Amino acid sequence: MTERSLRLERQLAFLLEADKVKQVVRRNLLSDGSRRESDGEHMWHLALMAIVLAEYADEPVDLMRVLRMLLIHDLVEIDAGDTFAYDTDAHADKQARELAAAERIFAILPDDQAQAYRALWDEFEERRTPDARFAAALDRLAPLLLNHASGGRMWRERDVSALQVRDRNILIAEGSASLWERARELIDDAVARGLLEAE
Amino acid sequence: MTERSLRLERQLAFLLEADKVKQVVRRNLLSDGSRRESDGEHMWHLALMAIVLAEYADEPVDLMRVLRMLLIHDLVEIDAGDTFAYDTDAHADKQARELAAAERIFAILPDDQAQAYRALWDEFEERRTPDARFAAALDRLAPLLLNHASGGRMWRERDVSALQVRDRNILIAEGSASLWERARELIDDAVARGLLEAE
Repeated sequence: MTERSLRLERQLAFLLEADKVKQVVRRNLLSDGSRRESDGEHMWHLALMAIVLAEYADEPVDLMRVLRMLLIHDLVEIDAGDTFAYDTDAHADKQARELAAAERIFAILPDDQAQAYRALWDEFEERRTPDARFAAALDRLAPLLLNHASGGRMWRERDVSALQVRDRNILIAEGSASLWERARELIDDAVARGLLEAE
Repeated sequence: MTERSLRLERQLAFLLEADKVKQVVRRNLLSDGSRRESDGEHMWHLALMAIVLAEYADEPVDLMRVLRMLLIHDLVEIDAGDTFAYDTDAHADKQARELAAAERIFAILPDDQAQAYRALWDEFEERRTPDARFAAALDRLAPLLLNHASGGRMWRERDVSALQVRDRNILIAEGSASLWERARELIDDAVARGLLEAE
């Protein structure tokens, strides 16, 4: 096998491994409440949000880097599973599980891409750059939009309060003041309509 | 409502409308054969393929434009549904149904974005630019990879032959000779292993 075809072989192996993330089911429902969403669907929706809402990033962002981050950020859940945002016990070892997954999954790629995507995943997790902060803001905004649209059933089933939702989603403010303003309106509206307990 | 908040309102309405595409189920199975794939998952997978396999485009491409096309190309199926690749009857009115859907769905966006995304969708459909040809090549390669990985069950259930698969997927060659070479190997391997009838 030539070096070039071996490279393609590793890339296709990575893309087939990535296919498994479609089977990771998230906690939030689709907008019509009919079923829960897969990680594959979530990452597509975030990428679409990034291209449509890029103008609301408070700091200048490199949209291509934001997209790359969003398209790979949940691949670690193939091994580590989805951790419910408001489950503090499960969050204790989340980081260790996800780090091990990142070690395994990105290494399937050719070395140059393995390093590049692993670094992008670290950057997303650390939220220290404008690109990562905007990507993280969208990652918070998406389930809020869907939970609001689907009548807040997941919030009520899990006894989540508006206080907790605000607390968790304040990260949106680090990426976009406009999107955070709209997010607060959605939370207030959910409380006013009885979709979400105030405290 | 200010002009700026009205703009955001239309963008969020579009993103919520787009959520419905997660409920459009495609014909091909996931790689492990466990279930069919949703359009949302498919568009995510294509976007990931685009960033990982960009080096195989035969003509210079603008990766951001390729990504924008791939992230929106199947939204028309919210109204028009998924048309099976080898169903010639359903293909007769596919174009009219999809055009009507494009008229409705992209118009939810603010006018500038509505025009830009509608033009990108037309460009993808027409395959006259290097960006569209590469995007279309990936759109063909993805189900081929998954059909091969899942043991060709969908091919056999629908009595699809290797001849038909080659005929349909020759479009890959218009975007990437290397990816088409690999696609032909996958088809030959599927025939050799009895996953796909030769004719």
